[in-house]
Amino acid sequence: MDERILRSWIREMRSQRMSGHELINRLRDLPFRDLGFAKVDHHRGLRCGLAEVIFCEGKTTDRVVRISREILRHGSNLLATRANVEIFERIRAEEPKAQWHEDARCVTVERKRVAPLKGLLLIVTGGTSDIPVAEEARVAAEAMGAKVRLMPDVGVAGIHRLLKQRKALDAASVLIVVAGMEGALASVVGGLVRRPVIAVPTSVGYGASFGGLAALLAMLNSCAAGITVVNIDNGFGAGRAAALMLSLRG
Amino acid sequence: MDERILRSWIREMRSQRMSGHELINRLRDLPFRDLGFAKVDHHRGLRCGLAEVIFCEGKTTDRVVRISREILRHGSNLLATRANVEIFERIRAEEPKAQWHEDARCVTVERKRVAPLKGLLLIVTGGTSDIPVAEEARVAAEAMGAKVRLMPDVGVAGIHRLLKQRKALDAASVLIVVAGMEGALASVVGGLVRRPVIAVPTSVGYGASFGGLAALLAMLNSCAAGITVVNIDNGFGAGRAAALMLSLRG
Amino acid sequence: MDERILRSWIREMRSQRMSGHELINRLRDLPFRDLGFAKVDHHRGLRCGLAEVIFCEGKTTDRVVRISREILRHGSNLLATRANVEIFERIRAEEPKAQWHEDARCVTVERKRVAPLKGLLLIVTGGTSDIPVAEEARVAAEAMGAKVRLMPDVGVAGIHRLLKQRKALDAASVLIVVAGMEGALASVVGGLVRRPVIAVPTSVGYGASFGGLAALLAMLNSCAAGITVVNIDNGFGAGRAAALMLSLRG
Amino acid sequence: MDERILRSWIREMRSQRMSGHELINRLRDLPFRDLGFAKVDHHRGLRCGLAEVIFCEGKTTDRVVRISREILRHGSNLLATRANVEIFERIRAEEPKAQWHEDARCVTVERKRVAPLKGLLLIVTGGTSDIPVAEEARVAAEAMGAKVRLMPDVGVAGIHRLLKQRKALDAASVLIVVAGMEGALASVVGGLVRRPVIAVPTSVGYGASFGGLAALLAMLNSCAAGITVVNIDNGFGAGRAAALMLSLRG
Amino acid sequence: MDERILRSWIREMRSQRMSGHELINRLRDLPFRDLGFAKVDHHRGLRCGLAEVIFCEGKTTDRVVRISREILRHGSNLLATRANVEIFERIRAEEPKAQWHEDARCVTVERKRVAPLKGLLLIVTGGTSDIPVAEEARVAAEAMGAKVRLMPDVGVAGIHRLLKQRKALDAASVLIVVAGMEGALASVVGGLVRRPVIAVPTSVGYGASFGGLAALLAMLNSCAAGITVVNIDNGFGAGRAAALMLSLRG
Amino acid sequence: MDERILRSWIREMRSQRMSGHELINRLRDLPFRDLGFAKVDHHRGLRCGLAEVIFCEGKTTDRVVRISREILRHGSNLLATRANVEIFERIRAEEPKAQWHEDARCVTVERKRVAPLKGLLLIVTGGTSDIPVAEEARVAAEAMGAKVRLMPDVGVAGIHRLLKQRKALDAASVLIVVAGMEGALASVVGGLVRRPVIAVPTSVGYGASFGGLAALLAMLNSCAAGITVVNIDNGFGAGRAAALMLSLRG
Amino acid sequence: MDERILRSWIREMRSQRMSGHELINRLRDLPFRDLGFAKVDHHRGLRCGLAEVIFCEGKTTDRVVRISREILRHGSNLLATRANVEIFERIRAEEPKAQWHEDARCVTVERKRVAPLKGLLLIVTGGTSDIPVAEEARVAAEAMGAKVRLMPDVGVAGIHRLLKQRKALDAASVLIVVAGMEGALASVVGGLVRRPVIAVPTSVGYGASFGGLAALLAMLNSCAAGITVVNIDNGFGAGRAAALMLSLRG
Amino acid sequence: MDERILRSWIREMRSQRMSGHELINRLRDLPFRDLGFAKVDHHRGLRCGLAEVIFCEGKTTDRVVRISREILRHGSNLLATRANVEIFERIRAEEPKAQWHEDARCVTVERKRVAPLKGLLLIVTGGTSDIPVAEEARVAAEAMGAKVRLMPDVGVAGIHRLLKQRKALDAASVLIVVAGMEGALASVVGGLVRRPVIAVPTSVGYGASFGGLAALLAMLNSCAAGITVVNIDNGFGAGRAAALMLSLRG
Repeated sequence: MDERILRSWIREMRSQRMSGHELINRLRDLPFRDLGFAKVDHHRGLRCGLAEVIFCEGKTTDRVVRISREILRHGSNLLATRANVEIFERIRAEEPKAQWHEDARCVTVERKRVAPLKGLLLIVTGGTSDIPVAEEARVAAEAMGAKVRLMPDVGVAGIHRLLKQRKALDAASVLIVVAGMEGALASVVGGLVRRPVIAVPTSVGYGASFGGLAALLAMLNSCAAGITVVNIDNGFGAGRAAALMLSLRG
Repeated sequence: MDERILRSWIREMRSQRMSGHELINRLRDLPFRDLGFAKVDHHRGLRCGLAEVIFCEGKTTDRVVRISREILRHGSNLLATRANVEIFERIRAEEPKAQWHEDARCVTVERKRVAPLKGLLLIVTGGTSDIPVAEEARVAAEAMGAKVRLMPDVGVAGIHRLLKQRKALDAASVLIVVAGMEGALASVVGGLVRRPVIAVPTSVGYGASFGGLAALLAMLNSCAAGITVVNIDNGFGAGRAAALMLSLRG
Repeated sequence: MDERILRSWIREMRSQRMSGHELINRLRDLPFRDLGFAKVDHHRGLRCGLAEVIFCEGKTTDRVVRISREILRHGSNLLATRANVEIFERIRAEEPKAQWHEDARCVTVERKRVAPLKGLLLIVTGGTSDIPVAEEARVAAEAMGAKVRLMPDVGVAGIHRLLKQRKALDAASVLIVVAGMEGALASVVGGLVRRPVIAVPTSVGYGASFGGLAALLAMLNSCAAGITVVNIDNGFGAGRAAALMLSLRG
Repeated sequence: MDERILRSWIREMRSQRMSGHELINRLRDLPFRDLGFAKVDHHRGLRCGLAEVIFCEGKTTDRVVRISREILRHGSNLLATRANVEIFERIRAEEPKAQWHEDARCVTVERKRVAPLKGLLLIVTGGTSDIPVAEEARVAAEAMGAKVRLMPDVGVAGIHRLLKQRKALDAASVLIVVAGMEGALASVVGGLVRRPVIAVPTSVGYGASFGGLAALLAMLNSCAAGITVVNIDNGFGAGRAAALMLSLRG
Repeated sequence: MDERILRSWIREMRSQRMSGHELINRLRDLPFRDLGFAKVDHHRGLRCGLAEVIFCEGKTTDRVVRISREILRHGSNLLATRANVEIFERIRAEEPKAQWHEDARCVTVERKRVAPLKGLLLIVTGGTSDIPVAEEARVAAEAMGAKVRLMPDVGVAGIHRLLKQRKALDAASVLIVVAGMEGALASVVGGLVRRPVIAVPTSVGYGASFGGLAALLAMLNSCAAGITVVNIDNGFGAGRAAALMLSLRG
Repeated sequence: MDERILRSWIREMRSQRMSGHELINRLRDLPFRDLGFAKVDHHRGLRCGLAEVIFCEGKTTDRVVRISREILRHGSNLLATRANVEIFERIRAEEPKAQWHEDARCVTVERKRVAPLKGLLLIVTGGTSDIPVAEEARVAAEAMGAKVRLMPDVGVAGIHRLLKQRKALDAASVLIVVAGMEGALASVVGGLVRRPVIAVPTSVGYGASFGGLAALLAMLNSCAAGITVVNIDNGFGAGRAAALMLSLRG
Repeated sequence: MDERILRSWIREMRSQRMSGHELINRLRDLPFRDLGFAKVDHHRGLRCGLAEVIFCEGKTTDRVVRISREILRHGSNLLATRANVEIFERIRAEEPKAQWHEDARCVTVERKRVAPLKGLLLIVTGGTSDIPVAEEARVAAEAMGAKVRLMPDVGVAGIHRLLKQRKALDAASVLIVVAGMEGALASVVGGLVRRPVIAVPTSVGYGASFGGLAALLAMLNSCAAGITVVNIDNGFGAGRAAALMLSLRG
Repeated sequence: MDERILRSWIREMRSQRMSGHELINRLRDLPFRDLGFAKVDHHRGLRCGLAEVIFCEGKTTDRVVRISREILRHGSNLLATRANVEIFERIRAEEPKAQWHEDARCVTVERKRVAPLKGLLLIVTGGTSDIPVAEEARVAAEAMGAKVRLMPDVGVAGIHRLLKQRKALDAASVLIVVAGMEGALASVVGGLVRRPVIAVPTSVGYGASFGGLAALLAMLNSCAAGITVVNIDNGFGAGRAAALMLSLRG
């Protein structure tokens, strides 16, 4: 609901065309918060460039295209995760600025420049197979204005690969650790830095990894305090959470 | 290892008392990072007031007391979680400044003033039974200098209790949501704010809550992007993560 | 078995065409409860339009078609769930009134008008991906005479979408909440209304949703008392349960 | 918030003491739904006698007593579940009308007569060990005005015990089936009646019953369509859901 | 090892061609039990017609064919479970007596008549989708000489279908109950008869059936004492166990 | 229901004292199977000495005593499992013949001699800690007339202990294998004999035995075909199943 | 069986007091391997000092004492794990050499000097709470002659503590890593050394550690190849496995 | 980093081209351990022939080929596990010495002769379906210089097959037991030998094997002390662990 409607009601009441009782009734039953939320959402969308997001998995290409058309019509930026090339091409046919992020399986459209966030997000991965999830995190964070650096394949089985990177670790404001199998990298990174660390378990593994459960449980039980965890393979959620943290820098 | 030792080695080598080959050998085998870590840890400890922490569960009172004595001897602040009154009294006998946080089951000793962090941490709970976990989070965050506000018992079964608090929610820089049973509060709060939200599942519940598993899974699967999760009942971890996020504000 | 058969036997016996001994034998060996159940089933079938139901998953098209032919031969209404277009076309070839409900993946044949049930069933979904399960619920409830309204995509991450609909929620006699991921919508709806709420967890999600387990556990642990739950993706069961509840209105 | 406040605001505005702009602001920021909910809750409380409920498990006796005092001060009826004799006696000391339901482990105080609901709720149990959960359901339903009949110990291992009761089963408007171990009773009852059936798995059993999980899964997978399920041992939730269903009868 | 070898050794020793010490050494290291087992196996194979069995799942067609050729070369009967038409045709090309049991997905070759077992094995199924598992049980039991009767689709949601069959149930010496979903049929049958009942959970179901886990747990927790259980979908194991029980009749 | 009653009704009808309509009503509503079941139960109880059984766990001593009094009043034999000394002494006070089986935690009263079953039941255990479950099986089987031999502590880690007993294994008609930890004994015994083998997993173990789950899963997946399984620690169920099998011998 | 018996039989046969046929029969039915095993066990016991082991958990003190008496009577060394002080004192009353290992909860009696094994076993723990399990491993390995060094509290959250110990890690022939919570230490150690690493998950942790499951899964999924794992809290098994590995050194 | 760089720095400093202060800075910030690890890795690689390993599952053929090219360029041996024929052919096109191990699904390239390890590794399997995992173990161990013998299909259901092989079991220095289903073979082998036994659960099985979970739990709970376990289907890990153990022989 628009504030104009509210204003017109008040005018009506003042001009005695509507009783106070009637106004009370209208207000009580009216989707009041709608107005409030919509405005706030709109402002925030403008302020931090938060693209509207479509999670494509389990949606037909047609539905994804229709939703993206709706979003783009309002001039918003677009982020479609878990997409595929067919979806990308259908969107690009309507919007030439659309970009395809292959590893991340994401489509983005940047209509409005997103104000850059301060600080650096460092995304660390245990192995090369974790890169798609890391890329999804990168795309999601960049869509909100984050500056991102990727540091792949520094898993704990060869701890020296990670330790060589101490400076880079220390330079980050926020870190995302993406790891499958036993997910130990999150604990090691969490012990090396004093910054928020978001752990993303991945479904990389086999047997008793149970689709990422082993890494998930390990990360939740990390002995390095201060680590927080998102769902298995949820690069998008980690990227968004990291950008929200960076936005604390002002 | 101290930089002075390194300097003396270099002096020795320059004055030909040690060969270059010998220096290489010493450097290779030396516990090099020890120096680095120790310094960094020390500096950071001073800078952000990070108290040394003892997780008391599963340790005898005697061991907890000995570890706390060790910590206090170095002039550090102390935080003992999952403690009990007996532990508290033993510590207070040696250190009169010790404080007992009953709901949080924590003992703290503040030797050095902790520099206050900017911003506000809001801790929201689903029910009154979640308060001990929320209190542990509060104590942990305050030990690092965070300013904390508690908003208990706003579970989603009576969503109006929460919606009445929109202003308070918007005023927070970082939020912790503590909830057991189905843990739905995290999703609702995550949808209302644009700030980092840390979800803490609690073991409050029975039957198919499986000791907090239901809430944990719900929080990991939250449809509100940007939520991150810690272990069941891990108020301490949430408090520390929140303080790390607040410290991004500079 | 029909009461008419029983009546004709009694006539036969009275007219001495059948001995009492023979009647005893027939009654003893006869699918006795069958008679009872069959009649009740028959009566109820007429009264509340309860279609005979085929669960197609895991059955060959041939078997489904043969069972549906059997049902239709007796003049009953037909409901085939978890069907596909091939099944639909095979049934329509024999029965032109057959209808295909694409989203619900159901085939229906309405031979006899179903007496309408009083009251309104409102089916609410968390996201657009939950719509197929909601549609299955709708088809199942309508086959029993329920009047149904669908309110899709009001998930809790944007709680205002739901709160805008308070009037519609209050107008329902019975509600079905269909949600995947963390399933929090059930608790929120359950806290807003004072009507029976049936929660249907869906397998929408990934990672630690474990095929709908997260939503299932969340709904079972709902802090909003009075919610009952059906199996993951069981739109049919929810629709039938809702219709049974509506039939209480008389 | 009270409607009177809203009325006074409108009076102020009409008398020009407050601008329309000011009213809009007040309305937008005000805990609007609070008014709505509070009224509705109050009305509904009066109408269907819905007692305020305290879940005592995990709360100290002192807290339970304080909450109950608060409730009773407002003249509401009280229902305290998972209570014990000590809690009961503390409440009775303040409120002589308090009643102790030993098997159900519930305390009730009936201040206002609850309007009786139409129809009959039948609660069926598999074994004698399921009776406490059944009693909790009974107390919860009666607190809302339901007429309840208990039919214990008709588990499926001796199916004749159940079949003897066909008439009683048919006489019920709503049924609750309480069963542990393999929970098969829900399916059998669900196949015998055409009324809403609420299944309550109990933790009665050992070994691979895994604290009621076996019964819970069985009930969720019931081949008798139309059964809905609540959490393990959740007699209270079943009783309340049943009463909500009965209230559909008008 | 053959007894003849043992005999020849003893002859050697007696004729002084081998020392007693040497014999002791040979005996100690010799695959002694091999002789025993091999004979017993052979005798039993002849006596109860126990066909050699190949579990085809996860084996290439080539390997299955080679193993079956080996078995048939020794004149044994053959039973290949979890087979497919291609395997059947390859075996029939070499052995024209080979038979294909489509529902059971089994190939059998009967070279030697199997002595018939006394008594009757009744195999009951909950639904039509359970028939393949029931057929596998039938084929396995018949391969050992059992007389088998199949009673499909008498699931507990329509208990009258089962109760009509009391006589047939009472006529059985051993019963196998094959059921998916909630597996309640096993408990009901177990309560009706006083004969050994073998329960076979099937993977028929969806959602919280977790691939047959719900039925498995239900059957293990059956309140009808005397039921024993085999692995999910293990028709073969149930058939063989039933035949072993029948063989107790002498 | 007795045939005589049916006959008298038919006489009544023929002599016009009852209408055909009335007969139909009586037949439809009558608790037909009740009579039937009761008779059958009674006869079978007499015939195979099947004691009435009380599962004491989770029942108060008072309730157990009242149920046992009821049973003994009808002259039945009594078996109370999961009992304790207090229960035993209360029962013995009323019935001096009561016996206490300490390891088995069972009370028995033998009022009528139970007809002995043919054949031998051999109960084998993996370790000494499995003996209580084995003893419960023994008591349950003996209460039905079985002749039982116990062979404890022949676990597979020292396979020679078992192999030494080949003769004893071969002498058994039915075998029960009781084992915790990895439950491998069931497979080994199942491979050595050609008789029905009932496997009882026990909760003996720690860590990843998960209260007997490891042994349960192992036994269900046994590579030795023909093994059937009962619930964890369910000695009683195994004993009864074994006795039912022995009763096949005639 | 003793070789002397075998020799006497052969003498009998040679002297014609026993037929060759008779000898064959005796040999076939005789617990042949018994002889073999007993000897081998005896020899190995002497050679590697393998103490007889009693797992006390779940055994009464009386039974433990009787078994230990039996063992000591044969002059063997004794190791009782999961013991308590009462058990220790009962054993010491009979055998003054008995020793109590408090942290390890073990009793040992060394009757015969155990031949020392070559090489060094290093036992590393993540935290101080893992020490009891580490101590059990130490006692078990020392009972077999291993030389053991303990390196406690080098968990990965402070990786520098571990890295400082590189020399000590490299000096070990075999390593045991004992860790609870997320168990990441095993992967880090496994990446640092090229020696067999045995990982022991412990039940140290809470919430989603699920009694050690998180650490167990992490260790099984370790990205550092060459790690092997034992049961949760199974220090004894790890110690024995390590000693077996050390014994490969000759 | 190369030692040559370090040497050149020292030369620079000695010749006054670099200050001591500068050297300290370079050393402190330099990826110091990199040098150390790299060298050690290199030396160990030469010494024990440890091939570089690529886990192909989840990597595109292109990526695998690029990584293998990188490895081969440095003259290392190559081991690619979970490969397929396409990968093999792409690698062979660049490196004609490449070998394809079909059952093991591995590609190997042996550039440098691997020094043979002392002792024998015996790999035992429960069934023929376990052979691929056993072959992977064989290839992995041989790539490190181990001498391997395979003993397939000696599962415990026919224990005599295993017992016949006592000599071969005793001849092994280290044993790997590969088994699916209930995994009992590990316990039996572990009880027969006094050598390190590595148990590999396989995903061979169905139903309640839950993808190898049953075998995994059984092996972890083995009553035969001294067994260690690797992940489900992890032949590679077992092979490498076994080779590490063999390398203890010197």
